[in-house]
Amino acid sequence: MDHDRMLTDPRAVRAAARSGAFTGQTSGLAHGCVQGNIAIMPREYAGEFERFCQRNPKPCPVLAIGDPGDPILPTLGVDVDIRTDVPQYRVFENGAVVDTPYDLSRWWRDDLVTFVLGCSFSFEQALVEANVPLRHIAEQKGVAMYRTSIRTTPAGRFHGPLVVSMRPLRAPDAIRAVQITTRFPTVHGAPVHIGLPHVIGIRDIARPDWGDFVGVNDDELPVFWACGVTPQAVVEAAKVPFCITHFPGAMLVTDLKNAELALL
Amino acid sequence: MDHDRMLTDPRAVRAAARSGAFTGQTSGLAHGCVQGNIAIMPREYAGEFERFCQRNPKPCPVLAIGDPGDPILPTLGVDVDIRTDVPQYRVFENGAVVDTPYDLSRWWRDDLVTFVLGCSFSFEQALVEANVPLRHIAEQKGVAMYRTSIRTTPAGRFHGPLVVSMRPLRAPDAIRAVQITTRFPTVHGAPVHIGLPHVIGIRDIARPDWGDFVGVNDDELPVFWACGVTPQAVVEAAKVPFCITHFPGAMLVTDLKNAELALL
Repeated sequence: MDHDRMLTDPRAVRAAARSGAFTGQTSGLAHGCVQGNIAIMPREYAGEFERFCQRNPKPCPVLAIGDPGDPILPTLGVDVDIRTDVPQYRVFENGAVVDTPYDLSRWWRDDLVTFVLGCSFSFEQALVEANVPLRHIAEQKGVAMYRTSIRTTPAGRFHGPLVVSMRPLRAPDAIRAVQITTRFPTVHGAPVHIGLPHVIGIRDIARPDWGDFVGVNDDELPVFWACGVTPQAVVEAAKVPFCITHFPGAMLVTDLKNAELALL
Repeated sequence: MDHDRMLTDPRAVRAAARSGAFTGQTSGLAHGCVQGNIAIMPREYAGEFERFCQRNPKPCPVLAIGDPGDPILPTLGVDVDIRTDVPQYRVFENGAVVDTPYDLSRWWRDDLVTFVLGCSFSFEQALVEANVPLRHIAEQKGVAMYRTSIRTTPAGRFHGPLVVSMRPLRAPDAIRAVQITTRFPTVHGAPVHIGLPHVIGIRDIARPDWGDFVGVNDDELPVFWACGVTPQAVVEAAKVPFCITHFPGAMLVTDLKNAELALL
């Protein structure tokens, strides 16, 4: 495994994941390339999930949908095989995690449909390049995420709470962040909330449901984006019979460039 | 004076102002047309003011600059005469108001240069059309305005505080308002602050320096835009020898369309 090459080359990241040499977090790897959230489920209710994504584009922006039974995703890069190229997976049965494998050789089926959804890593690159400071990155922590009282729009069996990620920003940076992330609708787009956590059902900002709290200073606002963890919360809430996702933080690294996703 | 025609026709508003039949507030008149803040001053320091505007584009977005001594502004509409077509004026000497005339026949000079600056009425139309609720309009009040601790960038003799207008909005509307007003940089553009009035030196949000306070509910954020009253505050702070402005709320109504100003 060539770690230096993995910093710039998405194929090197996927090759290391495929060989089993790399099973970790993908943040910071393949700089400039799009990383994706994964949801894989049987064709039986893949149509319902597709409608769920269509109705909830901010938490579930679709980058690619595979053909049923086909693990290859040609629109995302050279030789992308979803069975092996994610560093680690989570397998859910009836809403509960039953396995966290490093490849899907035990679990792949001919009726599975793969969804790849946009991830905030893409817009974070644009924010950092515009000098909007992101404290969780500076402190090398995971972004804080929260279940909210905002309900997703249901489709078939899929329903559940919107999950959001939070980044503390001074007001001028929050305004700039709205502008920048508006340009990236396929990776969650503009924030869904600013400033008033209790209004969206967050009782204690210091205790996120996932990730790390990095503080909100007196001159900062908590800024909330729709989060790609939402599908996992929905799979749990809806007790979906069978679903495979990426392991949190271990994303699919694609050959697409973040800059390609910008609207303007 | 044909009030019905004034609701849609900018030339009717200017004609009524010119004849003296109309001396009031222009909000709501000539629907869809751009209205402008006015600053008129001697050529001696007009160049300094032009640099002041260039350095402070959010409070002072320039729509037009007249030729020295020429009261006609052909880029803003048919037969626009700045000496007569504003309903009411304010004349400042050494930073103090010395007259509030309905025309400039007593005050016009051959060395005067006219600046027409964008006004928030233009972006308010875009907000209302996008169903972003503006309470001061619903309650037929003036927007609340505040002197802040944010300093403008000085140029020559011009210096002073940034003045902001405030509109209370729920967070999703505040985010939408950032997106919409970003499209209108020539009429103040995106907000300069959201949510934390004390950070910009506003001690009591309920007591604006100009206009009316319409409340900020528990589920709302105060959203602050740079305001066209800034030049008047600067003229006062800098004790400029001679300057003429519009009377607050009595703007120059132009033939330009608000929709023409949108970047995208």
